[in-house]
Amino acid sequence: MTSPLAGTHVVECASFVAGPTGGLTLAQLGADVVRIDPIGGGSDYLRWPVAPTGESYYWASLNKGKRSVAIDLRNPEGRELVLALATASGRDRGILIDNAVGRPWLAHERLTALRPDLVHVRVQGYPDGRPAVDYTVNAEAGVPGITGSDDWAAPVNHVLPAWDLVTGLSVATGVLAALHRRDRAGEGSFVELALSDVALAGVANLGWLSEAADREGERPRHGNHIYGSFGVDFACRDGARVMVVALTGGQWRALQTATGTAEVFTALERALHADLREETERYRLRETVAAILRPWFAARDLDEVGKELDAARVLWGRYRGMADLVAEHRAQAHEVLADLRLPSGSPAVTARSPLRFSGERGPAGACPALGADTDSVLADVLGLTAAELGGLHDRRVIATPDNPYKEVR
Amino acid sequence: MTSPLAGTHVVECASFVAGPTGGLTLAQLGADVVRIDPIGGGSDYLRWPVAPTGESYYWASLNKGKRSVAIDLRNPEGRELVLALATASGRDRGILIDNAVGRPWLAHERLTALRPDLVHVRVQGYPDGRPAVDYTVNAEAGVPGITGSDDWAAPVNHVLPAWDLVTGLSVATGVLAALHRRDRAGEGSFVELALSDVALAGVANLGWLSEAADREGERPRHGNHIYGSFGVDFACRDGARVMVVALTGGQWRALQTATGTAEVFTALERALHADLREETERYRLRETVAAILRPWFAARDLDEVGKELDAARVLWGRYRGMADLVAEHRAQAHEVLADLRLPSGSPAVTARSPLRFSGERGPAGACPALGADTDSVLADVLGLTAAELGGLHDRRVIATPDNPYKEVR
Repeated sequence: MTSPLAGTHVVECASFVAGPTGGLTLAQLGADVVRIDPIGGGSDYLRWPVAPTGESYYWASLNKGKRSVAIDLRNPEGRELVLALATASGRDRGILIDNAVGRPWLAHERLTALRPDLVHVRVQGYPDGRPAVDYTVNAEAGVPGITGSDDWAAPVNHVLPAWDLVTGLSVATGVLAALHRRDRAGEGSFVELALSDVALAGVANLGWLSEAADREGERPRHGNHIYGSFGVDFACRDGARVMVVALTGGQWRALQTATGTAEVFTALERALHADLREETERYRLRETVAAILRPWFAARDLDEVGKELDAARVLWGRYRGMADLVAEHRAQAHEVLADLRLPSGSPAVTARSPLRFSGERGPAGACPALGADTDSVLADVLGLTAAELGGLHDRRVIATPDNPYKEVR
Repeated sequence: MTSPLAGTHVVECASFVAGPTGGLTLAQLGADVVRIDPIGGGSDYLRWPVAPTGESYYWASLNKGKRSVAIDLRNPEGRELVLALATASGRDRGILIDNAVGRPWLAHERLTALRPDLVHVRVQGYPDGRPAVDYTVNAEAGVPGITGSDDWAAPVNHVLPAWDLVTGLSVATGVLAALHRRDRAGEGSFVELALSDVALAGVANLGWLSEAADREGERPRHGNHIYGSFGVDFACRDGARVMVVALTGGQWRALQTATGTAEVFTALERALHADLREETERYRLRETVAAILRPWFAARDLDEVGKELDAARVLWGRYRGMADLVAEHRAQAHEVLADLRLPSGSPAVTARSPLRFSGERGPAGACPALGADTDSVLADVLGLTAAELGGLHDRRVIATPDNPYKEVR
């Protein structure tokens, strides 16, 4: 089986999560992705979390499976190399991902002067080019204000950079949609994508803005209860917690069966003139429903809870710690997870692509040392000779791990 | 300019967020997406939030820009229609998105018997086909355990179905990658994608599992502080809150400039032998840094705070409510947002694609009434005659809004 994107060449000139996630996604589907960094690394090169060696687990995982090229981006000669790599000729070249707002030397027009049919996807903060990050756009999209409980005065930020990840996959989608159009119509594309727009579209597409318009204000915060349905966490006897969900009628019946509460709820429905088969009724009476279910969980350890919920086909999940996940990975419980070596040889845990083609999981990809592929990429793609590469090294325009970095960060 | 996916035909047989987000993304890039629902609607048809009319804002927004076909999926004749629509011939047909685990009649093998080069993307809960939803996989991926504050005993669930959204964009990416391979190599694809794998890959790719392995436990919960850097929320004099971030040296200098605190921090660095130019030092001393900055925000209303932060180019965002976003949308402040009419004519707020091609924003798409396109799609794609359609209606195999629904939900 050929990898879906085998033979496709992408240049990535981006940092932090969104752009690099786009490149990672394409690399794991078989594309050759060349990540270009400034010599010494960009502002994400040492981003937390870091290994005891000082290497960034974050950088390593988001940039695995790519080739790494280090170029002095302040040097005009270095900039010419970036332009040349991004616009190299060939049907499956000429694809660039960047987040280079405020870098006039990498303007779309300069690139299309070199290759008119370039596929160019640019990640922005705001659509007008002003900077923004996941943490700021999430606040602006209103999510922290409906997270957590109304007992807490302040908004609750999510820790997951969710909009970064959605933007990263949108980058991959944008690249492939533009590549499709270039294949069919010969047209290049300049695709811009703002983190802020992704966040606003995300909440709007869930219907949340329409509801806020009706309420003329924010919906209440219900802690761990699912809004508009039934789902909440329960503590087991041994202190483990589970998230239990009953969105559909079948899931609700299963939950009653597992916990032996069907008669209690039937009596409750009669007493309250309620019909808990309706999702909105389960939502309205969520505190009562949870209170009736809670003792069943509190009387059992997780093992027993899990067995009985599974036997009745209840929809549930255990609250796991990330350390638990690592232990499970070491017991080979999760095929999507994979081991990774940092450039120093130090171990790390990372992931393969969650997209399985014909049931197969591709490799996670190896983590390049910063600049490890500088010479080979410039030779392969631009045909530079050993003498030309030597000159670029002498003039400190490019770097490899063997040729000491100029520290320009 | 042609839409990037103009002429591409996709059949979607999925529900809830992930699959439909994949279809929506492709529809907004110009694909003709036919969403197939059971007569009367699937289990997501009335999902909250709902309008005063009872219509689901959620369903309307996630399925806009698609054509809606209603078929009795329990009827063998109805199932044959779905198979025929999914495997219709034509270079840009034969693309199916589903989440139909446990529907043997829609097995991949049955589909490829009809069209061997089918592009088929299937959303799952777990990779072995067991069901899971965003709320359960998030608990299992460990995110609630590091969200919020260690002052709170329980984990904090996010309200944003982040993994659903990431999975939805992964579906779009998977479809386009498989389509690319079919174009180049003639091969079809069966792409499976589990919500659980998306969540595990998400946390692994951020380096969080590697860190938990080193710690042999969970990282501390810091409330609204950004982990490993400096960023936290501040209250302004008028009660508005802002999220302020200093990831880079430039952002940190800007924050000191705006708040007039450069000399304070210089003195603090001397007293503590610390170097706050280092991101990890700002993280270590986050409480002290925040305490020094807090009075500046508390002494000013949001308007003044915003002006001064912008003047100094500080990276910040305001905590907005969703009702604020709607008011701003009505003042045309957000081009990505758009008005939508529910089938009843009732208004809603939704979004266009955040992907802008050549600076243009495509239409958000209209919301179809359930089954509105049943007859026209079956006539167009399968060439059914008026008499054949009449027979299917008579046998209650298909439905349109004009031909009363059989209530089989």
